[in-house]
Amino acid sequence: MEFVIIGGDAAGMSAASRAKRHQPELGVTVFEKTQDVSYSACGMPYNIADPDRSMEDLVVRRAQVFREKQGIDLHTGHTVTKIDPVRHKVSGTDDTGKAFEKAYDKLLIATGASAVVPDIPGKHLPGVFVLKNLEDGRKIKEWIAGASVKKAVIVGMGYIALEMTEALRARRIAVEMVKPRPVFLPWMAPELAQQVRKTVQDQGVLLHLGKSLTRIEAAAPGLRVLSQDGALETDMVLVAVGVAPNSRLAEEAGLELGPKGAVAVDDHLITSDPDILAAGDCADAFHIVTGKRVYIPLALRANRAGWAAADNVCGKETALPGIAGTAVFKVFDLEVARTGLNEKEARDAGFDPVSVTIRSRSRAHAHPGAATLWVHMVGDRGSGRLLGVQMVGREGAAHRIDAPAVALSARMTVADFYQCDLAYAPPFSPVWDPLLTAANQLLKVLS
Amino acid sequence: MEFVIIGGDAAGMSAASRAKRHQPELGVTVFEKTQDVSYSACGMPYNIADPDRSMEDLVVRRAQVFREKQGIDLHTGHTVTKIDPVRHKVSGTDDTGKAFEKAYDKLLIATGASAVVPDIPGKHLPGVFVLKNLEDGRKIKEWIAGASVKKAVIVGMGYIALEMTEALRARRIAVEMVKPRPVFLPWMAPELAQQVRKTVQDQGVLLHLGKSLTRIEAAAPGLRVLSQDGALETDMVLVAVGVAPNSRLAEEAGLELGPKGAVAVDDHLITSDPDILAAGDCADAFHIVTGKRVYIPLALRANRAGWAAADNVCGKETALPGIAGTAVFKVFDLEVARTGLNEKEARDAGFDPVSVTIRSRSRAHAHPGAATLWVHMVGDRGSGRLLGVQMVGREGAAHRIDAPAVALSARMTVADFYQCDLAYAPPFSPVWDPLLTAANQLLKVLS
Repeated sequence: MEFVIIGGDAAGMSAASRAKRHQPELGVTVFEKTQDVSYSACGMPYNIADPDRSMEDLVVRRAQVFREKQGIDLHTGHTVTKIDPVRHKVSGTDDTGKAFEKAYDKLLIATGASAVVPDIPGKHLPGVFVLKNLEDGRKIKEWIAGASVKKAVIVGMGYIALEMTEALRARRIAVEMVKPRPVFLPWMAPELAQQVRKTVQDQGVLLHLGKSLTRIEAAAPGLRVLSQDGALETDMVLVAVGVAPNSRLAEEAGLELGPKGAVAVDDHLITSDPDILAAGDCADAFHIVTGKRVYIPLALRANRAGWAAADNVCGKETALPGIAGTAVFKVFDLEVARTGLNEKEARDAGFDPVSVTIRSRSRAHAHPGAATLWVHMVGDRGSGRLLGVQMVGREGAAHRIDAPAVALSARMTVADFYQCDLAYAPPFSPVWDPLLTAANQLLKVLS
Repeated sequence: MEFVIIGGDAAGMSAASRAKRHQPELGVTVFEKTQDVSYSACGMPYNIADPDRSMEDLVVRRAQVFREKQGIDLHTGHTVTKIDPVRHKVSGTDDTGKAFEKAYDKLLIATGASAVVPDIPGKHLPGVFVLKNLEDGRKIKEWIAGASVKKAVIVGMGYIALEMTEALRARRIAVEMVKPRPVFLPWMAPELAQQVRKTVQDQGVLLHLGKSLTRIEAAAPGLRVLSQDGALETDMVLVAVGVAPNSRLAEEAGLELGPKGAVAVDDHLITSDPDILAAGDCADAFHIVTGKRVYIPLALRANRAGWAAADNVCGKETALPGIAGTAVFKVFDLEVARTGLNEKEARDAGFDPVSVTIRSRSRAHAHPGAATLWVHMVGDRGSGRLLGVQMVGREGAAHRIDAPAVALSARMTVADFYQCDLAYAPPFSPVWDPLLTAANQLLKVLS
């Protein structure tokens, strides 16, 4: 049997490795259009922050290892341009311009996502970057090392934009951030978003909300970024306004698409064609709270889906219940975390959400070094179910979010969650953990 | 109606405050034998570590506030010596020797626990301490400030002993630890216990396992601690071998006792007498994994049980499902955490436990500053249920333990837990959280 995989990053290489482990005799072929496979993309901002580290540090396993030690037929620099579901065949072109084709019994689409770039004049000028794959990271790092970069404009204020703001500030580069919509972190409860905003501004970062870029021009030296009401001079531009699934191949092959144009998959990662699976940032997932399809491309899901796809291809049936949208990021000295739904998402999904926002402490009464920990918690008035949690604080947010993430998987009510026996010791929390305090407050509103 | 409470610490004062909030017209009387109410006992080691902080910082709310602002009839220095369940009356003696008595409609026993002190000659010598209540803490702090304490012997190696070791080392006091049993942290998986042991020894602390104290003598200056095979010279001795519930009053009143002699209560905190409740370190609890009675006296349960007792007295019915035995402590730069059962406890409870111990990292591949994170996970072969987790690491153990604690409440299987959408970002964990890696390994052993 031939198992062919398009894309050699997290989902693709996880699937390839796992399939070979399950069935060493299985033919496993991977086509990857870049030269890079299996690297920690999420680590790029932290790598860029440190001039002494090589971007190659982020490579987890080299192509050679996959080929020689694992027996995977891995082709880098090979771009698949067509899937033929009827003849069970993929075809494409390699970096030398040579055409190739390959028949499959089972096909995994793991083409990932691409950074979205607004279609404005100047978007291809030198000094304008996105950050999605390792080559993007190398280019940014070389630009900073080569040019005398004193200032950067970041388009977008999502988590990659914020992580990159921290990275560039660590390189002593002044940063201005621009976004077209008026609200900072719109998915977040306002009091929590305000903490993040203040932290960013306290680092001297200028935020321009409600500004759409109209064009980017070469200046002498550097670049000029123009919006409807003015111009910013800068040495580089990073566009970080989000990603879109690389689903064109799937769409052209007639496969069903889900939210945001991602490849629609069932809980076995199987697309609308029973011999084609999809996993990673190109595919959708079920949300464990709503049961509905969502597109939330994150690393754990990509790895998990790669494994599960391989399991299913190898006859070791694996169903994935779905994701909770758990996400965490660091921005300067703040930990920012979320899981589940916010109020708007809950309302859109048909719940009757109520929420509370509380301000607690990261350590016990009178324990030195305590920081404020903000918790926002959403529950459903009808069923009492816990629907989502957000947290922001200098410490104690990142790992704490795992507790409500588990509660969402278990479909716990807020009352159930409130009864959980969470850990307490003075250096780590108040006696009543901030999550329990939030649950207690939410129970009062729910009842 | 008269609600009388014996004991004015966490459980007692939580109950008193909550009862008054529910029913301002309710007569609420508290008898506390010491002068201290409502303080953070768990904070004492950290307070002792810092000569510039006053022990009074740990007081959360003063007696006067309970009396004047909350209308609680609070009597400090009042020791209850008898409960008469037939006549619904308690009686005792105050610090001046005057007798008192008080009739109750509902009685809450919140007498706490006492430090266990082995019955050896010299146990009452000046310089020999326990650490249970605030007065104990004050005495230790005064002794350190007054005497020229260069060395301490700590009897016991549990979490209070370890926290105090850190505190005394912070005061530049040499520490030797002694315990009669041969195994260091016997409840912990050996590889994890070894990490804690190494950390303690790396701080220059000498450990004497398998040594029983036979007597303590006054030396000139200081003290001499004698065991079967030698003597240790020291300036102070701290006995921290565990606590026992203060259940004598309850026993003499004919109430049923549970494990370790704690007052047996149902899930409404009601004892074998329907008008007498018990809460806090004097009472037992149900373990949510086994469903059986256990005695695990910890602060969150005490506070929670105090509230629930008040709810039930005030007709606002509240049932507590039980505890998971979640506990966390810090020892030097290590976080040590547990929830649920270890293998032996699981076997004793009738499960067929299997376990894995894994060594993972606290941060992502190539992220600077990562530390080793050890995870030990126990599951039941028959049902696949998750039974318990232990973790040790320089970072990432303390709050992460809340995730399996929630999973235990939800009676999740290891397979369910493995599917949870835990948080990932490079500064906070590998893509596969160490808990998921442990679950994955355990699944292989379970299947």
